[in-house]
Amino acid sequence: RSGEMATKVTQLIDNEVFWAYATYTTIVLLKMMLMSLITAYFRITRKAFVNPEDTASFGKGESAKKYLRTDADVERVRRGHLNDLENIVPFLGIGLLYALSGPELSTALLHFRIFAGARILHTFAYLIPLPQPSRGLSWAVGYVVTISMAYKVFKTTLYL
Amino acid sequence: RSGEMATKVTQLIDNEVFWAYATYTTIVLLKMMLMSLITAYFRITRKAFVNPEDTASFGKGESAKKYLRTDADVERVRRGHLNDLENIVPFLGIGLLYALSGPELSTALLHFRIFAGARILHTFAYLIPLPQPSRGLSWAVGYVVTISMAYKVFKTTLYL
Amino acid sequence: RSGEMATKVTQLIDNEVFWAYATYTTIVLLKMMLMSLITAYFRITRKAFVNPEDTASFGKGESAKKYLRTDADVERVRRGHLNDLENIVPFLGIGLLYALSGPELSTALLHFRIFAGARILHTFAYLIPLPQPSRGLSWAVGYVVTISMAYKVFKTTLYL
Repeated sequence: RSGEMATKVTQLIDNEVFWAYATYTTIVLLKMMLMSLITAYFRITRKAFVNPEDTASFGKGESAKKYLRTDADVERVRRGHLNDLENIVPFLGIGLLYALSGPELSTALLHFRIFAGARILHTFAYLIPLPQPSRGLSWAVGYVVTISMAYKVFKTTLYL
Repeated sequence: RSGEMATKVTQLIDNEVFWAYATYTTIVLLKMMLMSLITAYFRITRKAFVNPEDTASFGKGESAKKYLRTDADVERVRRGHLNDLENIVPFLGIGLLYALSGPELSTALLHFRIFAGARILHTFAYLIPLPQPSRGLSWAVGYVVTISMAYKVFKTTLYL
Repeated sequence: RSGEMATKVTQLIDNEVFWAYATYTTIVLLKMMLMSLITAYFRITRKAFVNPEDTASFGKGESAKKYLRTDADVERVRRGHLNDLENIVPFLGIGLLYALSGPELSTALLHFRIFAGARILHTFAYLIPLPQPSRGLSWAVGYVVTISMAYKVFKTTLYL
């Protein structure tokens, strides 16, 4: 039974839309993972840590404790990372279902490209930072693209 | 090309369980996305922001700085949003694998409906807020449904 | 190109790689869900809550308010939970696409097992806590495994 199910899924995957989804999803997930490295970079250069074991190499007692602190740049990157999670998780799920719902390739590519572009712009807008409404608009564009894909999923497959 | 794709999709749509998963996943992800709008609503109405560039329109210097503050209602919505992430991400992954593991349609629908209902109740319990154990119970129900789906995945496909 | 891909995927999906992915994804998602229970355990034993409605059973007014506080152990578990989200979400998405991109079973199992092992070690390193670089290294191993899978996805299916 599970083999039968797997075969059906396989048939679906003969599908340029699916591999376009794969490409853009991997791009936005890698972009999100980059936020971890940027956070680590700022934590180390700003010497702003949160776990006592992370400052052990700076010595013992008070000399190390002063590095257990928050830093504005670290917090900014962390907010950008969380915003990525909040927006890329819906894209991951809704985008997959959208890719399997039979959209036109050109329409699907438009959705994926705009979403990926908006999230990359959002990161620049957050980290530089650019004046508002740069960050707000880039966030909203990704949001609307996701809603548009959800609408297509519901139109094709609503099964309550 | 799109017609051919549609035929393939139709064949797979024989898999009603998959499209039920698609429907309920899209519902809970949209519900989670709503938390962003509610956060923005409270940030604007309570004038409680975290990024200096977001308060630039209120003027310069001290007159804008006073809006860089935390607000109890904003923080409450943010906690609800994070709780959604922590619980909907497992549903997204385990639910997909469960849908492909060949459950009975009626059993699968029961799981998906209870999970979606529990998460919607959880949001109301968190935001109103309702007295405990409303929030705790609605969280636990969604949690147990996810464990139940994971058990079925392991029973069908354990491959270590 | 797309037809060739479909053949490859068909051969694969019968499909030990996919079910290996299913098994290890379910394991790491359940491990992540465990963090919720550990957080709840520490909140209750340390009496450190964040929502006023959660302390209502301790009485009214000041007698309950003193339990609205942060606790170092609670915050530590929460940081581990967020780190799981930041790293397991990319694994969920990139791992699925990797499993469908036609890797050798042995190679795929190697990726999945190392990732799952690294994330479990990361949790122990964070919660005990172990001295650095235990936590840093276990994080980095999971990170590199995910990058390696992303590279395979791009090599197989890049569709911009």
